[in-house]
Amino acid sequence: MVDNRFFVNHGPFTLAQIVEWSGCTLLGDSNPTIALEDVAPLDRAELSHLSFFDNPKYLDQFAVSKAGACFVKSKFAGNAPASMAVLLTEDPYRCYALIAQRFYPRKHPEARIAPGAIIAHSAKIGEGCCIDPGVVIGENVEIGKNSIICANTVIAEGVKIGESCQIGACSTISHSIIGNRVILHRGVNIGQDGFGYAMGRAGHVKVPQLGRVIIEDDVEIGSGSCIDRGTGPDTCIGAGSKIDNLVQIGHNVQIGKACIIVAQVGIAGSTRIGDGAVLGGQVGVAGHLKIGAGSKLAAQSGVMQDIPAGTAVGGSPAVPVKDWHRQTLALARLAKSRNSSGE
Amino acid sequence: MVDNRFFVNHGPFTLAQIVEWSGCTLLGDSNPTIALEDVAPLDRAELSHLSFFDNPKYLDQFAVSKAGACFVKSKFAGNAPASMAVLLTEDPYRCYALIAQRFYPRKHPEARIAPGAIIAHSAKIGEGCCIDPGVVIGENVEIGKNSIICANTVIAEGVKIGESCQIGACSTISHSIIGNRVILHRGVNIGQDGFGYAMGRAGHVKVPQLGRVIIEDDVEIGSGSCIDRGTGPDTCIGAGSKIDNLVQIGHNVQIGKACIIVAQVGIAGSTRIGDGAVLGGQVGVAGHLKIGAGSKLAAQSGVMQDIPAGTAVGGSPAVPVKDWHRQTLALARLAKSRNSSGE
Amino acid sequence: MVDNRFFVNHGPFTLAQIVEWSGCTLLGDSNPTIALEDVAPLDRAELSHLSFFDNPKYLDQFAVSKAGACFVKSKFAGNAPASMAVLLTEDPYRCYALIAQRFYPRKHPEARIAPGAIIAHSAKIGEGCCIDPGVVIGENVEIGKNSIICANTVIAEGVKIGESCQIGACSTISHSIIGNRVILHRGVNIGQDGFGYAMGRAGHVKVPQLGRVIIEDDVEIGSGSCIDRGTGPDTCIGAGSKIDNLVQIGHNVQIGKACIIVAQVGIAGSTRIGDGAVLGGQVGVAGHLKIGAGSKLAAQSGVMQDIPAGTAVGGSPAVPVKDWHRQTLALARLAKSRNSSGE
Repeated sequence: MVDNRFFVNHGPFTLAQIVEWSGCTLLGDSNPTIALEDVAPLDRAELSHLSFFDNPKYLDQFAVSKAGACFVKSKFAGNAPASMAVLLTEDPYRCYALIAQRFYPRKHPEARIAPGAIIAHSAKIGEGCCIDPGVVIGENVEIGKNSIICANTVIAEGVKIGESCQIGACSTISHSIIGNRVILHRGVNIGQDGFGYAMGRAGHVKVPQLGRVIIEDDVEIGSGSCIDRGTGPDTCIGAGSKIDNLVQIGHNVQIGKACIIVAQVGIAGSTRIGDGAVLGGQVGVAGHLKIGAGSKLAAQSGVMQDIPAGTAVGGSPAVPVKDWHRQTLALARLAKSRNSSGE
Repeated sequence: MVDNRFFVNHGPFTLAQIVEWSGCTLLGDSNPTIALEDVAPLDRAELSHLSFFDNPKYLDQFAVSKAGACFVKSKFAGNAPASMAVLLTEDPYRCYALIAQRFYPRKHPEARIAPGAIIAHSAKIGEGCCIDPGVVIGENVEIGKNSIICANTVIAEGVKIGESCQIGACSTISHSIIGNRVILHRGVNIGQDGFGYAMGRAGHVKVPQLGRVIIEDDVEIGSGSCIDRGTGPDTCIGAGSKIDNLVQIGHNVQIGKACIIVAQVGIAGSTRIGDGAVLGGQVGVAGHLKIGAGSKLAAQSGVMQDIPAGTAVGGSPAVPVKDWHRQTLALARLAKSRNSSGE
Repeated sequence: MVDNRFFVNHGPFTLAQIVEWSGCTLLGDSNPTIALEDVAPLDRAELSHLSFFDNPKYLDQFAVSKAGACFVKSKFAGNAPASMAVLLTEDPYRCYALIAQRFYPRKHPEARIAPGAIIAHSAKIGEGCCIDPGVVIGENVEIGKNSIICANTVIAEGVKIGESCQIGACSTISHSIIGNRVILHRGVNIGQDGFGYAMGRAGHVKVPQLGRVIIEDDVEIGSGSCIDRGTGPDTCIGAGSKIDNLVQIGHNVQIGKACIIVAQVGIAGSTRIGDGAVLGGQVGVAGHLKIGAGSKLAAQSGVMQDIPAGTAVGGSPAVPVKDWHRQTLALARLAKSRNSSGE
């Protein structure tokens, strides 16, 4: 169902393989040697396709889906059509993601250093790396095994990049230590000077930014995002955190592990974001704050105070999400009552 | 009046030519062989210049302008100074734009493939294309006639680009099918993975993004903007839509025809924007919404619900624009009354 | 204390040198030949380090700091520990910045034109410039002495850049005149067409953008920021203004001298920002406005009206900052009272 100009299907895979790789359980007496050829959403799947059912909103689609096999929670298994092999799991979307990765694994291009790449003599490039044309790599850079550096990206002196990383095209990296399996998309800018000045009427004096950017394992960073290096302390992105496009992260910011930061968020200097926090699109967080672990910041929130762990907030200035909804409602009523009273 | 370091004037043009190209009507007995040498705003125009008068706010400027000729609506023609040739049209700004394009046409550089460009053997480059130095073009890419690919841009395997396109410098394109006469400015990133994960405490699992980006004819996309490819469905930008700088468009988003999307807008995944919608700067639109045709979203709006066709909204969360103004007013009064009562 | 993979310490420096370069006064009988080896914050400084104390919040840290010398205001000098050489100044952070620049001066790479750079024959490159690999420079470009153009940056025909500038990697510049000592970070896009169309049902007609971008001396522009060229008038950035990452500046905007514009701000076309204005992160300013000198726009403000000089505003739509706080408070109370009354 995908465009094979761009994607190569590595299937088919048998139910037995799918069970093994996803950790699910095959319900009833379906034949584990049945092979599935592709993944597809419930409403477009055919008998040769694997699908998943996670959001109860789509129960109707599930009940009539033609998918040959489907990941589903046990409580909905009874709703499956007769033709469907039922793959039981309490996390259908996760299982689907794991198997979709088998069907369409991230391509690893052949190891090579392209003729058009310019690499300093003192740089160390690990085995299995693919360095595309136009890449410029400075002195003393170290890149681990099997990493891919896409075309026209610039990596300045001293940067360390781990194994199995993918650095997208037209990105720039300086003053950074990057872990393993990190993905940077395209046009990402990492390690530039933070925005630090001693301001004054006689002109703003630039304060040297003497820290680094530390990016831990399994981080993903979207296109066009910018992460400034620290002033002396480092700017740190915790393991497994996922950052969307066009996000701005200021100097000395510390982002915990497994955070989700949606597009166009801005985080000002020295703020700490706890593990597992979720920041919606276009959120702004002021500097020097502590955002607790597991907190959720609704899209476009403007955060000006510390947020306790596990708290959901919204609005600008941001307040607990219940208060935000109450305020929205109260204001709508106030405006309506004034209007109806002729004001 | 322009800096000829950067712009080459292709005039002069006669009134007859201007009438023909713009579709306007020459009022009275002005001599159609009179030649105009340049375009200029009302207050700076001289006798050799062509100008336009559209916004009634500038009626005073119009009445004393020294412009030799001017596009004007018929109802204001009587206000023209005696020295001015009057060009009647109900769309003066549009006529001006068409003629300004004649004076200052977009340069088409000589067809060439620059020595520093790196192009895969299987790529097909149409006649009349200009491929600048540092461009990297992957396997099976197809580029139509007379397209320009500016320096250091990276086009990944399989991408199709139509005729007479202009792709700005330092851009990246993958997984995309692009129509004719499309303009991408600089540092544009098209086709990267959407932001899709099966989230969980044991880590967020990346969901393969198996769709494409489809960009129809006559679309323009501003510098630094990002358009993610779809998850399986495609991300689509309708014909004639104009997108400003630093805009984020998520996976599966569908933008209709002739939309206007101002700088720093963010549109979350799977949202559909109807034909002719106008989104002001820094607007945020949540995912899975339907924004009706011809709707207008005021700058900084935060849209969390479907918007019916033809509706103007503002605020965050966005409400109909009248309600938004009422709310703003009601809140200002409330704060003032509380304050004056000593609270 | 810094990572010497990335930073080279040019010290040590004596107290006498530090006094001379910063313009401060050495209190008491400290020996001016004492040498300091590095800079460090109060809480991490040791006897060989220079620090500063500016924010009274950190008085406790100051009183027990082990720093060998410290910039401090005279009124706090009495709180200094006995081991510390006291450097009196009314601007400790500024003095610190000046001396930190001595310890860690911006590197100037060796003058060279790298083999991989592609430079038009008619371009004039000043003495002492460093042009990195992958840079593409068009016809009639002029670059002043001692400027650095980092890798894969593209400078289009006719652009003028002054002396001692630093243009970051993967940037693009066209239609621009740039002063001396200007810093552009990475992925900056300067001089593209402004977002100008004669809109209409039959399609939006592109209006040629015939102005330039003028950037005065000592301006700094953050990564990913975009500055559109003017429509006929120019877009201008005044001397000494500092612009953070991912900022959007529309056509014809005029920014005064020594302004501070924090990340992700958007300024719409033809707006004028007065000298010394400070715009917080994610601020949006509508077009054709006049923002007075010395005004302060709180983060996320949405400015829809002129702002008088020296005024602080906040909120969206923005109001004077006192009114904004009152509105925030009034709304919180209103929501609470409605809620407690059972509505």
